[in-house]
Amino acid sequence: MTLSDLKKEIRINQNFLCVGLDSDLNRIPAHLRKKKYPILEFNKSIIEATKNHCVAYKLNTAFYESSGSVGWEQLEATLEHIPDDKFVIADAKRGDIGNTAKHYARAFFERLNVDALTLNPYMGMDTLEPYAEYTDKTLIVLGLTSNAGSEDIEQLCAANKSPVYLQTMHRTAETVPQKRLMFVVGATHGTMMKGIRDQFPDHFFLVPGVGAQGGSADEVYDHLSNEETGILINSSRSIIFASEGEDFTVAAEKKARELSGWMASRF
Amino acid sequence: MTLSDLKKEIRINQNFLCVGLDSDLNRIPAHLRKKKYPILEFNKSIIEATKNHCVAYKLNTAFYESSGSVGWEQLEATLEHIPDDKFVIADAKRGDIGNTAKHYARAFFERLNVDALTLNPYMGMDTLEPYAEYTDKTLIVLGLTSNAGSEDIEQLCAANKSPVYLQTMHRTAETVPQKRLMFVVGATHGTMMKGIRDQFPDHFFLVPGVGAQGGSADEVYDHLSNEETGILINSSRSIIFASEGEDFTVAAEKKARELSGWMASRF
Repeated sequence: MTLSDLKKEIRINQNFLCVGLDSDLNRIPAHLRKKKYPILEFNKSIIEATKNHCVAYKLNTAFYESSGSVGWEQLEATLEHIPDDKFVIADAKRGDIGNTAKHYARAFFERLNVDALTLNPYMGMDTLEPYAEYTDKTLIVLGLTSNAGSEDIEQLCAANKSPVYLQTMHRTAETVPQKRLMFVVGATHGTMMKGIRDQFPDHFFLVPGVGAQGGSADEVYDHLSNEETGILINSSRSIIFASEGEDFTVAAEKKARELSGWMASRF
Repeated sequence: MTLSDLKKEIRINQNFLCVGLDSDLNRIPAHLRKKKYPILEFNKSIIEATKNHCVAYKLNTAFYESSGSVGWEQLEATLEHIPDDKFVIADAKRGDIGNTAKHYARAFFERLNVDALTLNPYMGMDTLEPYAEYTDKTLIVLGLTSNAGSEDIEQLCAANKSPVYLQTMHRTAETVPQKRLMFVVGATHGTMMKGIRDQFPDHFFLVPGVGAQGGSADEVYDHLSNEETGILINSSRSIIFASEGEDFTVAAEKKARELSGWMASRF
């Protein structure tokens, strides 16, 4: 699915929710942990419970790699259970020189065949190019992240007075075609978010940080949306771990439905 | 193995070579590609051929992820074939918020149990902290990378006239204890390398970019070494793909021996 297809799904469904499958083995319900593939079983249930209330799923590779090759197997298997009309993101924040980047691109865009991949642009624009060669895939490049540490480097003020993250975003926008590019913009930055939308009126943003990290969905919508919505709000822990008991699917469905209802009210 | 142990091995062996297992499936000899685990077979042969001429091995995760979970299995299996007296680096350049970073730390420092992991510090110092909690492990944080794109963001001049990469390195040095920290400093930067050593006289550097990327080993030694050597030179493609034929182990052994001989001459 392309970014253009995702925008269409957002319009049709009046929904811009991405469910983050940050499926921490230590937090999934005890009765599932006994199974051979606990993360896969958990994901299948969460997908079933939330698929009518979202347009996208995001899989954070860390939560699979921490189980080793068995975790990577469950990442692969989970993808088979995501309905075809959902936009699938691998949240891997990869970033490396060209020869290596080609292999990451192959891993995610060919082998796993996800629709989009998050990327860390710090090493420079030549590290993004191998991904941009896949014309049906979307690159999701770090803009301003949701964590407090974003002050350390991203928000450093450069010599021309513009912070590093904005310069990085402008360089990225020159490198990757807009129709295949999203930026990560954290939900925790108040009015700074408005400034980003002003500088990038037509770009699409993936917005983490609503929920467990404290960002407000209303504030995100007010500051970051544009005429064609232009945002995908990701919620991970607050949905998938809404309950850590046997009723986890009921609790996840309820939480996703609440967000979905709020989103529909904005159309 | 700790960084202190590595320094001891360097001194004893008069060697500071790291062999990079960037084991690109498309470049390994044809007769191995027919095997069930071609990358593992290739790595076992390369390790056997080079182990007397190096003190460390570096596994770049991209070249394993591009084979999916089977690739990750071969990454795990390769680690079992590296002798105990070698320092083992996972070159993964991970970087993400704390909750996610904890899982990457678990993946590499517990599950794979490597000695060191490369990290991308762009998202800020709080993203390094979960790794720093492992007191027997070494964090290898990007300083100035070897690719041309390092000009785009790393070399941006910040408001106080110091480039972003130097500010990032200083912040990192305040966050991670020196005895558990290396910086990545690319071999391709001529006299800029000297400037980095001047600002960080006692830190240890992992130096990629010698060989296939065009960096000179002599220049690296002259600009980046310190009294206790203080550098690990990584060579990947120029050793492991010295020949892509059936004589690949002979060619790899020869190339590693040449570098090892040159290194011994510097003690």
